[in-house]
Parts: sequence; structure tokens; C-alpha cells
Amino acid sequence: MAKEAQFVEQIADIESDFPQWYTDVVIKTKLVDYGPVKGTMVIRPYGYAIWENIQKELDARFKATGHENAYFPLLIPMSFLTKEAEHVEGFAPEVAVVTHAGGEELSEPLVIRPTSETIIGNMYAKWLQSYRDLPIKMNQWANVMRWEKTTRPFLRTSEFLWQEGHTVHATEEEAIEETMTMLGVYKEFAENCLAIPVITGKKTEKEKFAGAVATYGMEAMMHDGKSLQAGTSHYLGQNFSKAFDIKFLDKDGALKYGYTSSWGVSTRLIGAIIMTHGDQRGLVLPPVVAPTQVVIVPIASKKPGVLEACAKLKEELASAGVRVLLDDSDNSPGWKFNEWEMKGVPVRLELGPRDLEAGKCLAFRRDKCEKAEMELGGVVEGVQTLLKTIQSDMLESARKRTQERIVCAESVEELLDGVEKQNFVKAGWCGCRECEDKIKEKTSASARVYAEGETAEKCVVCGKKAEHVVIFARAY
Amino acid sequence: MAKEAQFVEQIADIESDFPQWYTDVVIKTKLVDYGPVKGTMVIRPYGYAIWENIQKELDARFKATGHENAYFPLLIPMSFLTKEAEHVEGFAPEVAVVTHAGGEELSEPLVIRPTSETIIGNMYAKWLQSYRDLPIKMNQWANVMRWEKTTRPFLRTSEFLWQEGHTVHATEEEAIEETMTMLGVYKEFAENCLAIPVITGKKTEKEKFAGAVATYGMEAMMHDGKSLQAGTSHYLGQNFSKAFDIKFLDKDGALKYGYTSSWGVSTRLIGAIIMTHGDQRGLVLPPVVAPTQVVIVPIASKKPGVLEACAKLKEELASAGVRVLLDDSDNSPGWKFNEWEMKGVPVRLELGPRDLEAGKCLAFRRDKCEKAEMELGGVVEGVQTLLKTIQSDMLESARKRTQERIVCAESVEELLDGVEKQNFVKAGWCGCRECEDKIKEKTSASARVYAEGETAEKCVVCGKKAEHVVIFARAY
Repeated sequence: MAKEAQFVEQIADIESDFPQWYTDVVIKTKLVDYGPVKGTMVIRPYGYAIWENIQKELDARFKATGHENAYFPLLIPMSFLTKEAEHVEGFAPEVAVVTHAGGEELSEPLVIRPTSETIIGNMYAKWLQSYRDLPIKMNQWANVMRWEKTTRPFLRTSEFLWQEGHTVHATEEEAIEETMTMLGVYKEFAENCLAIPVITGKKTEKEKFAGAVATYGMEAMMHDGKSLQAGTSHYLGQNFSKAFDIKFLDKDGALKYGYTSSWGVSTRLIGAIIMTHGDQRGLVLPPVVAPTQVVIVPIASKKPGVLEACAKLKEELASAGVRVLLDDSDNSPGWKFNEWEMKGVPVRLELGPRDLEAGKCLAFRRDKCEKAEMELGGVVEGVQTLLKTIQSDMLESARKRTQERIVCAESVEELLDGVEKQNFVKAGWCGCRECEDKIKEKTSASARVYAEGETAEKCVVCGKKAEHVVIFARAY
Repeated sequence: MAKEAQFVEQIADIESDFPQWYTDVVIKTKLVDYGPVKGTMVIRPYGYAIWENIQKELDARFKATGHENAYFPLLIPMSFLTKEAEHVEGFAPEVAVVTHAGGEELSEPLVIRPTSETIIGNMYAKWLQSYRDLPIKMNQWANVMRWEKTTRPFLRTSEFLWQEGHTVHATEEEAIEETMTMLGVYKEFAENCLAIPVITGKKTEKEKFAGAVATYGMEAMMHDGKSLQAGTSHYLGQNFSKAFDIKFLDKDGALKYGYTSSWGVSTRLIGAIIMTHGDQRGLVLPPVVAPTQVVIVPIASKKPGVLEACAKLKEELASAGVRVLLDDSDNSPGWKFNEWEMKGVPVRLELGPRDLEAGKCLAFRRDKCEKAEMELGGVVEGVQTLLKTIQSDMLESARKRTQERIVCAESVEELLDGVEKQNFVKAGWCGCRECEDKIKEKTSASARVYAEGETAEKCVVCGKKAEHVVIFARAY
């Protein structure tokens, strides 16, 4: 038993040291490792398989909503960045710069894309001629770079993987509709595929994307009550159209600037999954994106018929499209239980000689750590139903926890108390930057999104009329 | 008709000006465009969709042969490159270098990966402990950069997309077996998915990958008789293991260096498709990777029932898994014919009032530019059969052309004559670098691969005993 206990011991306490718990889990489950250059990560096969499942689900949704994939260059001329005033201010400090290539110094430094509005805008300006070409709706799956001194795998690294959608429309209405549609796509995906309940809404001026007219975010509450920005959708108005000359000849014969949007999610989502669902034993993965949905562990595997029955079970499940793995290694069943629990596999099936005799097996569900018997004759259907149940139960359980931890504050003190108790805090805000900064200074909480449709009397800081109800939280 | 003729006119003559034909085709069919930085390309949706189909087919083959995907950092410390002597010599001259990031000068310059043996080797050394961890078989889909002054979209650009497999094995035999297995996977894929017949074989020392013990390449003959290196598989021996300390504790208790392999194909394959199958009308895409497999063109589309019948046809084909598009735009049928022929869509279905009455439609196959009637009742089956026929006919036709254009030479003059007549030329070679260089100098042809299993009397240059029969060709 000493060997088995080891696994659990090696993970820091989730309640008292959540940051260390996170690091332990991502490293020990081999999701990720640190790269040789400070600030970089290596996404290992177990982590990358989650990303592939995320990509598959999202990509189908992007295509179903009329988007096409393309690929734009990694390197952007420094001068492009400076064409949109807010954009350069936001991104210039964190870019990586190529100054030499092919053995020579470059005449103009090139930056590694921190995001691609500028280079894509440059190409759209070239391609767009007439209203007939609109809308342009493209997406790219790519790596991007924003220099970081610290590394928090999946959450904050210099290089990360993401998708970025970029669209051009003839009218403001259409561009805003696109912005909101994609926010909706993200929310539906986060809830149904990742089992992460999200709160969506508009961001404050301070928190918006550098260069946007308006940014809409989706925020998710992590285990420690902090918020993680899990995706953003930006309405860019004509800011980039004017900077890059994205114009078209409209039906009425007039040359007009297009209205653009952009939206993205990244490998941060893997961090969100870990910190939403994980527990003291390690990862808890939602079935839709789990690399392995079912692991079969033979009990007394040397007894006649056991391994054969397990292999048959595996074939049946695999044929039905279940991602299943048979652990026929030399490790003890207890060791295997701990290992696959730590790796968050949604369902474990245990099958030994007695089970075989009784025509049953034991099904362990990782989310609730409960075991139940399952008829061997009905395993495929049983497992498929169980996976769906786990998926929806995980969402409900996370939703319940999030809802219970949203409180209201009437003063900065109450706001501080709320976030210290690991809550999201709703508070009235007058709309001025000074009050927003003061809240940050006194509570370390930032404005996450507006609580759409809600009203408050007074600003929690200055007491003046509240323009918005804002959800404040400490954030990743 | 003037408008329709335009399309054809705009493409340069394929026989007299193949390079311009290529440029015209890739730009006019919107596969690709030039990026703002010299040497870069933008892969547009029509080109990227081909890449997605290539990825899907290859990725399934990699996984079926036991490989897992992962993702390693883009930036590599300059010092890594220098650890393997041949490797740095080969790649240092063409790397792009990041010297500044986050507003500061870096203490060590970082290079954008030209290939990832070094950074992956560094991580493998960290992960590998025991023989139980072997083999390690990973692949990554990524962008890489090798600085170029000229741009030939898909063929030669600073940045391109590719996959790179990297494996470690306990023995030399296993690593060589892996190298050959992946070469075989590439060949099967190129022939069955891209309809490109390839010649595989070992490369000479001069042409091998910088740092490899042996490189195996697959070469394909383009329309102009030049060869395109379509993929490579490298046996790396212990070169990178020793440079990066990739060691493991073997069964016998001894610490040993692993044996590694690497292998890759890139977006060059799209160039290979274009130059293998294209004709004067433009692209001819193999059905397996064509973004659109079937386009439906309504004839007299305003006549009652025509558009409805076309839409029904589209639904039937789409339900059967065919990638189908209905062109119900305002353009004339003739315009549409030219456009979709230029874009290389394998099958066009034409449906007008008379066809409807007769219960038939016309099926045009792009590869042979032939039309045949098809019963409307059996369109799904008919189209599926036709797509398969086109796929295999394209391979056969390319194979026939390639075979007819492989000639033998007994002298350097014959070799020159052979390549000037747009052939691949087989010739005996003594194995020395001087003779290889002389052939390059006199004929502009390089050694592509050894003709495995064939023998010749004498070296075509020096007349000494021939060690190998080599296939020489001018190359992209």
C-alpha cells in the first residue's frame, strides 16, 4: 500500500496550497513540462490529446457557422503594429523581435505575432473589393507569443496555441451580431464540452482588447474562487479597417470601410478544465474531451479468462466509438486505480474472476468517486449512458458551486471580504476609471464582466449613481 | 464567351512557361497569396482545406502506427543548434533569430525552429529513464522557418507548415525499422491519397539531412520532368542522443544511448499535387484531398424545378459524405464551368430542364475532361464510383508518365541530354563527392535517390567501378 499512497501524497493539498496543487497535477499527470527557454511549455501527448479534442469540437462549430480556416504568416513587420494606436500600446511591450535572419541584419525588425489583426487586416485590404466579397469569415489555428517572465503552464506562457477568428462585414449590425454569435458558440462549447459554466458579458474599457470598440468575455470560476478568462470576442468597429484600409465598393457605388470582429480561445482552456473539476486525487476530465474515456483494469489478471474478457470488453467499447484503454501492465490494481484517477479518466471498469462468473463488472465514476455494478451484457450502452451522465453532472456540480459563490457588495470592504472568501462579487460601479483602479488596489480584484441586465443604486467606491453592475473577482 | 475565355487566357502556357503557369494557377485559384514579408506566404482557405485533408489522412496513419502528437516550443536556444556539428553547419545559415523580447535584449539569442531535433532531444533526455519508456514515438504539427530570399508558394518559403515525427529506440535495428516504416507510410499516402507515384530510396551523403546517419527520400516527377522531394525519413543513429544525452538504463543494468529517427512532410505536398496533375485549364485535384469533390451547376436555373432538383441532389450527396457544392450564383454556366475546372474540382454535375425530364444529369470528370450521362436515381452511387475511378486513374496516368520518362545514361553527355528532355536519369556512380559535384555542375541535376537493388558497371563520370545506380534529376 505504501506505493499506492505515494501518488496521493505527491500532490499538494488542494485547499491550502492550490497553486502547488496545480503545478503538481499538470506535471505529474504528464500534461505538460517546462521548456528550456524561460516562459515556455512543452505540451505532452496527454495534454495535447485534450487540445485535439477541443479543436475538433470547436472547429466543427466554426465551420457550421460559416467560417473557413486559413493560415497567415508568423512574422509581422513592426510597422504594422504601430498603425492602430491602442493596439501597439497594448502589445508592443510584450513582443518577441526577430532582428537577424539568413545571416544578415533585417532592414525592418519583425515581431512574432502576439495576435494577428494587423497582418490579417493587411491581407483583407488586398482581397476585399466589393460588397459581394462580404462577409469574410476566417479562422486560424496557430501559435502566438506574448513574452512572460513567469511560467504557469497553460495559464501564462510566452508561447501558446490558440485559434483566432477574424471577420469583415458590410455593416456595424452584422459585425456586432458576429461578435455575439461567436461568444455564444464559446459559451455553448464551454458548458457542453468542457462542463464549465461560464459568465459572459461586456468588459470595461480598462479590460478590453487593445484596439477593440468592445470586448465580450467569458469568465469561469476556478476551484479557489478566482476567475479565469476563458475566451473573448471583440467588436473592432472600423478601427482596424481604417488603419489597414479594408474598404469595399458598396451597392450604392460608395467606397466604405468594413466593420471587423475577432475572437479567440487558447490552450488556457486546458488550465480551466483542471482548475474547475480537479480534486485531491488529481484531474477529473469531462468525457467529451478526455483522451481516454474508459480504462479497464483487470483484477487477478492471471486467472484464466480475465485478460481475454477484458480485451473483448475493450473491443466492444472501441467499436462503439468509446476511447478506451486496457491497462494490462504489471502494476497492481491499486497502483492502477491511483494512476488513472490522478489522470482523471472518467470511467474505470474493474473485471475479475468473480465478476466474470456473475456476468458483471464494477464501474467507477471519477467525478463522484462512486462504484456501481454493470451487467457485462450491457456494458456498451451502460458506459455510454454513464459518460453522458458524468458530463452533465460535472456541469451541474460546477454550476451549483459557481452560483453559490456569487455574492453582492455594497461597499469596498464587503467586496474585499467577498473575494477573500473566494467569491465572485457583484457591485454597482459609476463607470469611472478611478473607482475601478481603487477596487483593484484595495482588493486585488478586477472587473471581469458587466452583469448584463442588472442594476444597482450606487457605485461601491464613490457612492455616485451606478452605471453598471460589474462582476469583480481576482483573476488568473 | 469573351468573359469565359478570359479564365483560360490568364494562365500562362503550361508547356512553354511552366514556372509562370504555376504562379498563375496558385494565385488565381486562391490557394495562396504572398505575405507582406519577403519569402512568406498566406495559405488561403482553398489551399488550407487541402492541407486539412492531408493532415487528416496522415494523422490517422501516424496514430495507427503508434505515434502520439505533442507540441514543443517554437524558440530554440542558439546553443542547442551547435551541439550537433553537422546540424549547425546545415541550419545556422538559414535561421531567423530573436534577439529582443519583452522590451529587453535577451542574454542568449533564440532561433525560430528550422526543425526540432535539438529541442525535442533536450526534452527526451529529461523524460527517458529506463528501457521501459522505449520506444518514444511522437509527432508534431507545426510551423517552421528557414530563411529564403525568393518565394515559390508551397515550394520554397521562409515559413511553412509541416509535421515532424521524432522517435527514440533501444536498438539500431528498431530505429532503422521505424525510419523505413514511416517512409512506407509516406509512399502509401502519396500514392493512394495524392495520386502521386513516388520513388523512394536512400540519399547520398551530400543530399542527406544535416545530422543524419542516413536519409531516405521520396521523389516525385513533376509535369516538367523535374523532381520534387516530397518527404524524408532520417535514421539519426546516436548522433543526437550523444549531443543531447538521451540515455536509458537497459535491461542489463547498463546506461546506454538511444537510437533516434525523424521524418517529415510539409505544405510542399500541395505544390506536388499542383505540378503532378495540373493542366492548361488549371488545377486537377485528387478526390481524396479535394476540398470540394463535386460541384453542381444548374442549367437554365430559372426554369421551374431546376434549382430545387439541384438542391435535392446536393443534399443526397452531402448525406452520403461527399464534399459537394451547389453553384447557384448569377454567373453563366460557361463561366462556372471554367471557374470550377480551373479550381480542379474532380466532378461537375450539370442539371437542366431537359435532363430533369429524362431523369438524368451530365457528369464531367475533370481529370480526363470527359462527360457522361448519369441516372438521377443512382447519382450517389454513380458519383462515389466515379470519384474512386478518378483517384485511381490519376495515379495510373501519373505513374505511366513517370515510368516513360526514366532513362539510363552511360555518360555525362547522355545524362545532360536526358534531363534536358525532362527525364529522370539513372546512372552508375562511383560514390565519390567529386563525381557527384561534376554532374551537378555540368547538368544542373542532383542525385535524388539510389535506385535500390540495381547495379551498373561504371561511374558515369570517372569510369571507375560503380558503387550505386543513382537517379539524377533537376529538382525543386
